[in-house]
Order: sequence, then structure tokens, then C-alpha cells
Amino acid sequence: MHIEIICTGDEVLTGKIVNTNFAYMSQKLEDAGLTVKWETTVGDDREDLLSAFLRAGERADAVIVNGGLGPTVDDLSQEVAAQAAGVELVLHEEWLERMRSFFTRRGRTMSENNVKQAMLPEGAEFVDNPVGTACGFAITIGKARFYFTPGVPRELRRMLENEILPRLLAVSGTQTVIRLKRFHSYGLGESHVDSLLKGVEALAPDGSVKLGFRAHYPQLETKLTVRGADEADIKAKLAPVEAEIHRRIGNYIMAEDDDTLEGVVLDHLSRAQGSLAVVETFTGGQIAARVAPLPGAEAVFRRGIVARHFDEIAAALGMTGAPAFDTEPPTAEFAEQVARAARVQTGATHALAVMVAIEDGEDRIDLGGTVCIAVATADDVASRRSRLAGGRDWVRLGAAEMGLDSLRRYLQDLPIREPNDFEKVDKL
Amino acid sequence: MHIEIICTGDEVLTGKIVNTNFAYMSQKLEDAGLTVKWETTVGDDREDLLSAFLRAGERADAVIVNGGLGPTVDDLSQEVAAQAAGVELVLHEEWLERMRSFFTRRGRTMSENNVKQAMLPEGAEFVDNPVGTACGFAITIGKARFYFTPGVPRELRRMLENEILPRLLAVSGTQTVIRLKRFHSYGLGESHVDSLLKGVEALAPDGSVKLGFRAHYPQLETKLTVRGADEADIKAKLAPVEAEIHRRIGNYIMAEDDDTLEGVVLDHLSRAQGSLAVVETFTGGQIAARVAPLPGAEAVFRRGIVARHFDEIAAALGMTGAPAFDTEPPTAEFAEQVARAARVQTGATHALAVMVAIEDGEDRIDLGGTVCIAVATADDVASRRSRLAGGRDWVRLGAAEMGLDSLRRYLQDLPIREPNDFEKVDKL
Repeated sequence: MHIEIICTGDEVLTGKIVNTNFAYMSQKLEDAGLTVKWETTVGDDREDLLSAFLRAGERADAVIVNGGLGPTVDDLSQEVAAQAAGVELVLHEEWLERMRSFFTRRGRTMSENNVKQAMLPEGAEFVDNPVGTACGFAITIGKARFYFTPGVPRELRRMLENEILPRLLAVSGTQTVIRLKRFHSYGLGESHVDSLLKGVEALAPDGSVKLGFRAHYPQLETKLTVRGADEADIKAKLAPVEAEIHRRIGNYIMAEDDDTLEGVVLDHLSRAQGSLAVVETFTGGQIAARVAPLPGAEAVFRRGIVARHFDEIAAALGMTGAPAFDTEPPTAEFAEQVARAARVQTGATHALAVMVAIEDGEDRIDLGGTVCIAVATADDVASRRSRLAGGRDWVRLGAAEMGLDSLRRYLQDLPIREPNDFEKVDKL
Repeated sequence: MHIEIICTGDEVLTGKIVNTNFAYMSQKLEDAGLTVKWETTVGDDREDLLSAFLRAGERADAVIVNGGLGPTVDDLSQEVAAQAAGVELVLHEEWLERMRSFFTRRGRTMSENNVKQAMLPEGAEFVDNPVGTACGFAITIGKARFYFTPGVPRELRRMLENEILPRLLAVSGTQTVIRLKRFHSYGLGESHVDSLLKGVEALAPDGSVKLGFRAHYPQLETKLTVRGADEADIKAKLAPVEAEIHRRIGNYIMAEDDDTLEGVVLDHLSRAQGSLAVVETFTGGQIAARVAPLPGAEAVFRRGIVARHFDEIAAALGMTGAPAFDTEPPTAEFAEQVARAARVQTGATHALAVMVAIEDGEDRIDLGGTVCIAVATADDVASRRSRLAGGRDWVRLGAAEMGLDSLRRYLQDLPIREPNDFEKVDKL
């Protein structure tokens, strides 16, 4: 099935806003086994919209149009859709009524402008928007079925997932259920994981499992798209592949599906009624900022301490007799002392120390830093020492990830020191 | 001039990466007074690329193509460009030589794959890429001049700004110099600033100054696009408008052009040989994380303290005789006590305390929080108390911004308490 997407609106065309709606839609379709072949962005311009609709209608089987369903004069999608389909706009009474009660429930009066949002091309199929006033619809232009969706991301997401995707899957003749399974890992690069996972797809019959990746440094997302007759079939097909992935890269998997590294760490500590202190230097509070604001963290996150100098860290923690910390790169032993002292001072069950010495000089692609990480509990401590490079931002992002992931590994009884593709060992 | 942009690559088309290159290019052109009329994204597919090139060549005067200049087999831009222009690919000896020395300087050997990157359509104009191996070029297809650019953002930016933009401006017949002046503000919404600045454009002659906005919560960017004969002319035209903008919304302007709020705060403290302690609750370390990792912050950022409970803050700062902090929303006085205590404990010249009590319950759009902010020095303290709403993330982002901006206002001798459009006063 040839699918196209048309994005509309001056704000997107002029780059005033980055077009995340497109990436979201395309990815969502991809995850469901559908592929977008062509994307067009045009502004709020009658002629360009018409031309884009007609051209897509010549080429595609299905087209998703995003935006232009609002109440203002520059929202032209319904009007141009009607023109392209050669029909008139007619009032959709039911939607007008829905909008009126939408406003009434919020204690507001509907503006007459909004009536425009209930005008649909004659013969259009109504597509529900339960969370906004922009009414979706479907209509045929040329040889393609067009689906019109709102520009507001929250409304688009709901409509795409609940209304458009099921229709597209029905039209595409895909009688199967599709599920996306995701693994979030840190420490192995995309091509490395790709080679480590060679052949896992073959563990499921008939090519029903497809492997893919999405890298966003420092994390890597490994994705399995699974097709089956129903949920039970999917589960059965997924099980051997999932088990094999865990066998091959399990220690590196921090979280799955919608879970996050910080969420997994918080969950572990919550379940154990634990508490956490975090001590940071060059990461500047970024590690604390990932955990502390989460719902439920108020019962776990005890204290965060940030300083740019090791002697200031020592002062904050009342560490006496410490060496002149700023003269040398930090050691794993120093990180251990810091973590122990933070645990004692705050009374937390766990303390994480991430001590970074960033190299001097202008920021550049090979600028690096030494990262020493320690996790301490009442009667134990574990640590690692690494060198990261790639410029100030990459060292900072990498150190925060490695720090939080070391804590995750500690909490899951995994070694906190394992080979890491982002680690530079040459200069240690 | 009718300008189009064609983005290429499976990673962009499938939504695996969000297309920030397009927004960047379009915005950059817009800022230079040029407008993109149409954007197309196609994958690494010979037929689609050819079709996209030929269609754009029929409609446009100028086309920027992004991506597909790499060394691998799925990088097809040069090849399809040659086909669309009806010419052969020929080796660009000079670029091959440049690539070889590029690799040699990095102690690596050039792979034979890279030779492909020196193959340009016959007759193409060479467009320099001083920071990568993807060679840019320009060629005419149909009635349009096509400019081919690399997909790597850093390489694209350099090439667009130094090579493509000057060529486009020359072709467009714009004999004028164009400059973009930007003001970053916090506390006033876009429509409010728009109404406050009504008429400022008229202070410059001939419509040579154009006003625009870009909102990214919690900040607002106000932009002036200025056209003039030369730099002196631009300066003269800009001066009265700039002065008037400062007169009308000056206190709310945190930074200008490429400066940032955190950079301005750091700069003020650096110049005064000052130092900073930051105490945070629900913002979780986010305020510290904006300042502490900056170049130069090692001499200014003294210490950050994060906790989710006010009594833990009190414990960390050795504040005795404090009330039962967690039973009530915080007061401005409590924030003042915290800031004073942090200053004394750390010996910093300035301490910022941002105490937030977030409401209980499920996250929702009207969830709010009480925010108490104080800035203390050795012999002074200033504070404000506000209510922010919009859900957990908005309260967190707003509190961090308001906190850091209060410090900026204090350092610039401005009132830290001024009307704020994001503040909800009804529930205080």
C-alpha cells in the first residue's frame, strides 16, 4: 500500500516549530508494519494545498493530512479537501452539538468561529476526536483515501492510534495483530548490538518478527515488530526471541517498552523501601533532575549534592583528611569515599557518586573526561573508572547515563563494570 | 523567488530521526528574508528521488536537497542529480585529494567507498564542506538551481550559512544586508508581548524592520528581521526599535541573540568575582544543571543542594528550630531563611533558593504548585511567592525558569517580583 503524509501550516513550513508530528506518525505506521513513501509540507495556502492533495491523490492509496482543521481563517483543510473532491461543505450537526457541550462543560461560550470546524465535505466519513474541537474526517480524492487529522499533537496521537491506524490496517488487508516490543540499553553501539543479535529473528516462524533500532545517544532502543493472529499468537512468537535477546545483551538492557532507566531505579528502591543520595560534579545536577521530580520519588530521593570541585564535595560531606582532590583526575577510591560519606551524612540506604574531571581547553570533538562512579550501601561499595570523549556535552550525557545505569546494575545484582563501547581505554 | 527543500533518507522518512534539519534551514532562510514554499521528504529510493527532483525543477527557482551525499550504497543524491540533469558523474580530483588528507590528518586510511563522495555531476558547481567528507554542489535541473547539502547537521549548518545563503541572496536580487536581532524573555505570553510592542516596526523607515515571535515555554523569543544597505544602515534602523522594545518590556528580557539566561547569570557573577549556591526541591537539580556545566562555571558555581522535602533541606543546611516544613505550602520567608543558610554554609556570595510544593494527585492540565523563591547575599535578601499550574512538567519548567530569572533580575538591580502571565493568582 502506497501511503503519503501531507503536513500543513505556515508554522511548520517556516520552521517556527519542528515537525515532530510527522516523525511520530511515520514511526507509528512503521511499527504497525505500514510504510510511508512520500511526505509533503505546504503552508496555509489554498493553491499549494490543492496541488498537494491532487498530486498525492494521483500516486497514493492512502494519505494522512495533518493540520488546518482549526477555527481561524488560515485553517483551510476542509475547504480545500471539498474542492479537491469536487463536493460542497455541509454542516455536521452532531459535531456542532458536541462542540457546544465541550465548551459548556468548561464554563465557556463557543465562539461563532468554531462553527467552521463542523463543516465537512459532503459525503465525508466522520473520524472522532474525543479530546478537541477539530473534527477528523476521511474522503476520497483521486485514487486515494484521505484522512484529515488535527495539528495538536495530543489530539493527533489519539486519533491516529484509535481511528486511523485500524482503518489503514483494514484497508491494507493485514488481518493480523501487530505488537511493538522495545528494549532500552546503554553501553553498546547500534552496529554492535546488530551483530550480537544476528539471527534472533529466525527464532520466530515465517518472518513474523522484525528487528530494528533507534539510537539516541547515550541510549539505544532495540525494537521487535511482531505480527500474529491474536495476542496469544504474538506472545508465543515473541517469547523465544525475547529470551534470546536477554541472553545475549541482557545486562545492558536498562528498561523495556515505556519504562525508563530512572523509573526502573526508582521502582527498585521504592519496592525495597530504600532511599537515595546523589553526589555529582560536571553532570551538574542532571542525574538528580532525572529521578527527583518523578511521582513517587518524594519517598525515595533523599538528597542531591552538586559541586564543580572535588574539595567542595569533600567539604559538603565533611570528609576530613582528604587529599588535594583537584590536582589529579579522580580515582575510583575517591568516588567510593564520597559515596560512603554521602550515605552516612544523609542516612540514605544507597548513595551514588559520579565524579568527573573534564579536560581543559576549547570544546572539541575529541575532548574527554575521566569518570569515576561509586555506589555505596551500609556495608558495601562498588565502583568503576572510565574515560569518555566526544566533547563537553557527550561527556556530560555519557557520565550521567553511566552513573544512573551503574546504580541500576547494582540494584539488579549485575556487575557495574562491563565492557562499554563508548568508553575510551587508550588514555587511562 | 520560489524556493523548495527536498529532504532525503529512510531514517527521516520513517521517523527514526526527527527532521530538525528542515526546520533549521527554513528558519534560517526566513530570517534572511527568503521563504520556503514547499517541502518534500523521500526515502533512499532512486525512483522517488528522481521524481522529486524533476517535479521541484518544474515549479521552483531554487531547491535545497539535504542528505544522500555519504559513502554508502544507499546514498544516491549525486547519481540521481546527474540523471535528472542528463549528465554523467565525473571525478572531482581536488575533493578526492582533500578527503585523503582529511583522513591522513586523523591518522586513518581512506576507504575506497569514500571515492564515491568525490563523484559529481558533470558541470556541477563545487560547494565547499570544510568540516566533513560530503562534498556539496550546485546544478540546474529543469528551471531550478539545485543545491545539494550533507545530512550531518554540523556540516549542513556551515554550508548553508557560508555557501548556500549568499548564493541564494545573490540570485534573489536582494541587494540588501539582512540581520536578525533576537530578545529572549520570560514572564509575558506571546500575544501579550505582541500587543505591548504594537507599532514598534513603524519606528524604522520603509518597513525595513519586521517583528516576529517564537514561543518555547517558558521562554519567548521576539525577533526583528532588519534589512539595510550595509551594517551601518542596519544599525541606524535597528537602534530606535531596539530602544523602544527595551523601554516597553526591558525588565522581562533575559538575554539577547545567542546569549542564554544561564549564560547571563554566570557572566554577571564572573565579572563580580561572585559565587553561587543553589537550593532546589521539585525542580530536582535542573537549575543547577543549567549553570554548573558551563565553561567558566567552575570558578562560580559553588554548591547545589537538592531534596524533595523541606525538612531535608533544613537538615542539609543545619537550620535548627525550623517549623514543620512539610505540613504547609512554603512561605517566602522560609525561602529567605533557606537562601541565607545556604549562603552562610557554602560561603558563596549569592544563594538562590527555589522551594516548590507540588499538588497531590494524578498529573493533569490544571495541576499546580506553590513556588517560593529567594536570593540572598551577605547583607540582603529578596523573595517572591507564586502559584504556577499546567501539570507537573510545566510547574517544574516554570519554577526553574522563574528561579533563575529572579536571580538574573536581582543581579541586574531589577525588581524580582513583577506581574507574570504564567502565574495563577486566584488560589494564593
